[in-house]
Amino acid sequence: MSENIKASALIETAERIAPFIHRTPVLKSTAINEISGAQIFFKCENFQKMGAFKMRGAANAILNLKDEQKTRGVVTHSSGNFAQAVSLAAKSIGIKAYIVMPSNAPTVKQAAVRSYGGEILLVKPTLAERQANADRISKEKGATFLHPSNDLDVILGNSTAAKELLEDYPKLEVLMSPIGGGGLVAGTALAANYFGTNCITIGGEPMNADDAYRSLQSGKIEQNVSANTIADGLRTTLGSINFPIIQKYVNSIIRVEEEEIIAAMRLIWERMKIIIEPSCAVPLAAVLKERKQFEGKKVGIILSGGNVDLERLPFTQQ
Amino acid sequence: MSENIKASALIETAERIAPFIHRTPVLKSTAINEISGAQIFFKCENFQKMGAFKMRGAANAILNLKDEQKTRGVVTHSSGNFAQAVSLAAKSIGIKAYIVMPSNAPTVKQAAVRSYGGEILLVKPTLAERQANADRISKEKGATFLHPSNDLDVILGNSTAAKELLEDYPKLEVLMSPIGGGGLVAGTALAANYFGTNCITIGGEPMNADDAYRSLQSGKIEQNVSANTIADGLRTTLGSINFPIIQKYVNSIIRVEEEEIIAAMRLIWERMKIIIEPSCAVPLAAVLKERKQFEGKKVGIILSGGNVDLERLPFTQQ
Repeated sequence: MSENIKASALIETAERIAPFIHRTPVLKSTAINEISGAQIFFKCENFQKMGAFKMRGAANAILNLKDEQKTRGVVTHSSGNFAQAVSLAAKSIGIKAYIVMPSNAPTVKQAAVRSYGGEILLVKPTLAERQANADRISKEKGATFLHPSNDLDVILGNSTAAKELLEDYPKLEVLMSPIGGGGLVAGTALAANYFGTNCITIGGEPMNADDAYRSLQSGKIEQNVSANTIADGLRTTLGSINFPIIQKYVNSIIRVEEEEIIAAMRLIWERMKIIIEPSCAVPLAAVLKERKQFEGKKVGIILSGGNVDLERLPFTQQ
Repeated sequence: MSENIKASALIETAERIAPFIHRTPVLKSTAINEISGAQIFFKCENFQKMGAFKMRGAANAILNLKDEQKTRGVVTHSSGNFAQAVSLAAKSIGIKAYIVMPSNAPTVKQAAVRSYGGEILLVKPTLAERQANADRISKEKGATFLHPSNDLDVILGNSTAAKELLEDYPKLEVLMSPIGGGGLVAGTALAANYFGTNCITIGGEPMNADDAYRSLQSGKIEQNVSANTIADGLRTTLGSINFPIIQKYVNSIIRVEEEEIIAAMRLIWERMKIIIEPSCAVPLAAVLKERKQFEGKKVGIILSGGNVDLERLPFTQQ
């Protein structure tokens, strides 16, 4: 499938979703450049609408629906950013969104989905229950099911963050993103391939949820044994649509420990004064861990989102 | 004295300090505009060098020293942002900085001062000890004493934040800043007077440290009885140099409660994904408290700084 993805698809996607997203700023930090020895350009998707890059993929997937599909709405199951992204994108485009959420989803996340106009169905907090209910709603309402990462339209939507970054800084030598389901790194790697100049893509992954690293090694999709990481956006596993794109276009994956993620997150909070999710900190943690590999290089990092629970921060001494 | 401050002084100051500071960005938030009913333009001095507007005043005060003064260095006493600002400004300009700090100053703040090249003297944590030691160093070393707020060069340096904001958004109707020692609001009001168009300046002050509010009422400098506020940058009292400027150019002062400060701080963190100090949140708290006064107005708010202790945040449930 990945052979069929052309540069024109990325360009058309960027044009399609432009009215529904922010073109986010790129920030630099003298302090972090000194510490890392690299020149890092942070693409701030934490400032994106609803606070994460997921808005890009959700908007593209919905805009690509046929008119008859649009009248019947969309459905997804998520407790995180994709639930908010689908709700807000659907509202912006004027269609209905059904969101299946686990009954233990924080009330603050339920409230966010509701504020964006998503219709919530709370179900038992198991993946089977979530999928079964999403399938049922899809059947009953005729709503189109949207997957948060394993969907070509979502991947293409995600690619626009890296495309913008390369427009602003065409000479980047490395692009980096975290890897969870693989939708962001796949989109990032496609953009690096088509719009970069000798620009490689490197993924960052928590050691504790390293399915993508092991999948690249073995050549087939591996499962996470556990997914006990603070990077809550990265607990999901790789999908069949993004895996071949990752195999073809991603140079390598660097794994980092939990304390390295927290230290990198803290560095960004303290030095850049911006709020990022733990998942976002994984690529910087990788740069700091493999210092020599990045020294003197121009590195673009996609900061994927900024939706954190301020009452449960890893910095606070308990 | 305030009669003698001319627009040209502000313009010359801005030119003088430009090489030593960042021109900080101005951010807007659709969500906060909807909540407040106003159009708010946040001047992000939390992204300033060393993380606060204090860099502007410190740089100006040092640049205005005579050459023979520069060779003997500067001295101040501070446990907060001004210590860092003087250290970094002195280092940037190539002169020596002696910083008297209370022995109970957090090690992270001591480390920051040291990283900027300031020479620290730790003393007993009383104002008398701090001042006595600063005076002694000033005498022994011939170093010039710098006051964090009650100094015309510092006030002029501070005015450049509001000047930049008005260059970017000339039609602002209200400028707001927090009030601690009064150096920021005095500079802001001077800029609004000279560079705004019918633009008034309103200060925000914690109810628990409302010396400036009471001073404006009584017409003489009042003292804080206590200063028990989370807005740790605002615990200091008004000075004799900035008070007459405030009397002449500041329209009014709005006082806010502690829980209003924390709620406004949380709103900025959650919706704008940027890190600000509690002190910064005071003007937004005032806008939300006196909604009718600001409804439909274009309001510029100086976000004064972003140096917070991540281990002691007010959001975390203990």
